[in-house]
Amino acid sequence: MKPDLKIGIVGLGTVGAGLVRLLQTHGGKIESRAGRKINIVAVHAKNKAKNRGVDLSAYEWVDDPLSLAHRPDIDVVVELVGGDEGIAKQLVERALSSKKHVVTANKSLLSKHGMALARAAEEAGVDLRYEAAVAGGIPIIKSIREGFAGNDISVVYGILNGTCNYILTEMRETGRDFADVLKEAQEKGYAEADPTFDVDGIDAAHKLSILCALAFGAQIAFDAIDVSGIRTITSKDIQFADELGYRIKLVGIGKSNGGVIEQSLEPCLVPISSALGNVEGVFNAVCVEGDFIDRSMLEGRGAGAGPTASAVVADIIDIARGYSSPVLGVPAKDLKPNKPMPDKDIISEQYLHLVVRDQPGVIADVTAILRDHAISIESMLQRGRDPGQPVSVVIMTHDCSRADIRAAAAKIGALGSIVAKPTILRVLPL
Amino acid sequence: MKPDLKIGIVGLGTVGAGLVRLLQTHGGKIESRAGRKINIVAVHAKNKAKNRGVDLSAYEWVDDPLSLAHRPDIDVVVELVGGDEGIAKQLVERALSSKKHVVTANKSLLSKHGMALARAAEEAGVDLRYEAAVAGGIPIIKSIREGFAGNDISVVYGILNGTCNYILTEMRETGRDFADVLKEAQEKGYAEADPTFDVDGIDAAHKLSILCALAFGAQIAFDAIDVSGIRTITSKDIQFADELGYRIKLVGIGKSNGGVIEQSLEPCLVPISSALGNVEGVFNAVCVEGDFIDRSMLEGRGAGAGPTASAVVADIIDIARGYSSPVLGVPAKDLKPNKPMPDKDIISEQYLHLVVRDQPGVIADVTAILRDHAISIESMLQRGRDPGQPVSVVIMTHDCSRADIRAAAAKIGALGSIVAKPTILRVLPL
Repeated sequence: MKPDLKIGIVGLGTVGAGLVRLLQTHGGKIESRAGRKINIVAVHAKNKAKNRGVDLSAYEWVDDPLSLAHRPDIDVVVELVGGDEGIAKQLVERALSSKKHVVTANKSLLSKHGMALARAAEEAGVDLRYEAAVAGGIPIIKSIREGFAGNDISVVYGILNGTCNYILTEMRETGRDFADVLKEAQEKGYAEADPTFDVDGIDAAHKLSILCALAFGAQIAFDAIDVSGIRTITSKDIQFADELGYRIKLVGIGKSNGGVIEQSLEPCLVPISSALGNVEGVFNAVCVEGDFIDRSMLEGRGAGAGPTASAVVADIIDIARGYSSPVLGVPAKDLKPNKPMPDKDIISEQYLHLVVRDQPGVIADVTAILRDHAISIESMLQRGRDPGQPVSVVIMTHDCSRADIRAAAAKIGALGSIVAKPTILRVLPL
Repeated sequence: MKPDLKIGIVGLGTVGAGLVRLLQTHGGKIESRAGRKINIVAVHAKNKAKNRGVDLSAYEWVDDPLSLAHRPDIDVVVELVGGDEGIAKQLVERALSSKKHVVTANKSLLSKHGMALARAAEEAGVDLRYEAAVAGGIPIIKSIREGFAGNDISVVYGILNGTCNYILTEMRETGRDFADVLKEAQEKGYAEADPTFDVDGIDAAHKLSILCALAFGAQIAFDAIDVSGIRTITSKDIQFADELGYRIKLVGIGKSNGGVIEQSLEPCLVPISSALGNVEGVFNAVCVEGDFIDRSMLEGRGAGAGPTASAVVADIIDIARGYSSPVLGVPAKDLKPNKPMPDKDIISEQYLHLVVRDQPGVIADVTAILRDHAISIESMLQRGRDPGQPVSVVIMTHDCSRADIRAAAAKIGALGSIVAKPTILRVLPL
């Protein structure tokens, strides 16, 4: 039996407390699976006095979190502070440079500084592990890095934010509007007081940037992601989608084509009968398409104390067993530049929701603009008629480029007969 | 860079040829991911002359497959022969005893001899890896062994045989009968000439026995599995299920409760709206419930050259990286005895399909028998009336034990007014 693996934990919020609880609950089981004992040596959080529902008395409490990065009696630093600067960044950098393994759940840190941190870990010859950073209850990092390692992965896409999926599911099931459901989600603790990171798609985009790098062997490039959130989705959009056989999901899409990479994070129409269409509530799911596996999908809880702590523990056990691999699957120096796909090459069917004044000539104007952008119409849906009053018109297009649909929508939105900014949603042919 | 990892492959059928093709196609990528080159040193199959669509000229052809077990220039023996005795068993045993790592796709071998082989591998200090043995395109072995290692897993269930799922999907979509669809599946190559292993549930039960051992930390116990196949499912059953909001799937179910383990492999009614209900055609899916992850599901192709070869390569890369772990997640000596759950403790709702002569008193007789076994009825469905002629009656029960429903069905089947053997199908509340 190898000597105990000694860990220090910084951050004792939901995930940190969950991690302590997990290690306390399953100590014996984990020792058997890891081939050695996992020992919490020291912990740090902002507020020592706070009751976290777990007994911390057996662990040394340190006042300086950064001190854990240098202690000779610690093998692994677990960073659960969050944020892409400050303590989290300093702690991870210092831990790596003093040759400690690092386990983190910090997607924003990795999305922004992942390349430098990967290089630092590989230079130091230690592991930087982050299963908990993307869809905690789903072993998607391990699956892509190891399980699908024999494949050329061309596509990775999925539902990466449980808060948004919960809101969209609630909107559909109750017919209520975004603002109303968001407020309730905040009261229930499913959404943050400042929901920006979640509902504007930033959190999911952080995760997508990590998945794309790992899947395509490319450098992390958060800034190359085209991000839209779900604030503009109305209950009417959800009703229309339903009538057309679709559900609206916030989907992260990564595609690699001859070294050029698409990274999009946007609300999409997905078929009700598809696997992704059936992922509801706070659940996440990630699909991977590879040349030998064809298609594989993993579904589970993306957040919460239990699933996230489970992912952190999986990383710790891997380190205990001596599983060592480059941070992003291949050595950081071998990662290709992340060359973004131009909008003219991003092709899909589109859903276009217009709120128009019900007057003669509107549809003629709209369809003329679409024609001028070489966009052909698959179907058109209009509910109600009330001359002179605004009515909703939904147009489903055939395949067209993102560049064309955006240019056309901008022109359509400028027509005097169009009352609100047109809503464009990509249709995914799953 | 570590020295090349040298492998010998025995068996060049669909999977073996697929493995060679994968290693040839992605040699550079795999070297980068594995941290070293993977070299095929020698190969063997029954028929040297056969054209397998891959170029084997660079590899030594050996006439004696067992010779690969002892050669000093081979690190890993890949066993793709199949079968639970004969060459496959001898090769794996000898390779382990001469301290070679073994990668296999052989579920029947593991199901029958897995305990002895696990002990042999651990004594020799080498790895025995078998991701390809269960649902090739799904990294379920790795996920349970590593990804969910921080959990106490209470339930594992899934669709583990693509042939059966294809047949059931076709039956539902076309309304055709089992025998007819099976014949077509055989012509298309989706089913074997002798379909017994697939349609009688044996292949899926082999896989279930491995999953249960791994998930519950228990000894492999194939003989403890209650196995029923899909031969008795009629298109009428599928129609009735559909009317009731269900699909019929062949499901492997493992549950662990205080050291007592249920292992069942049987056609079940699963809700149309459930994740499992939406797994169609040749696809497989496995759900895992753990105390920290809650529920996670993995879906993908279970068989075929590509997905299976991909799983074999993932195992080879793990070995190349030096990832070493006990065969069943914990040392074989620590696996608990597999104590089977008695039928009286296996509780679920049941679907009971009776073909009865349409005459007075039949339902009274049937319901009296159910009452005598403490089985209460949730709903009853009858289609058509034709006095004196057989008609179908479907009864959905509330929760009852397997012991009770089987005893009741036997008595009901013996009634003079019952024309055919009653069909009992478990209802899964997913």
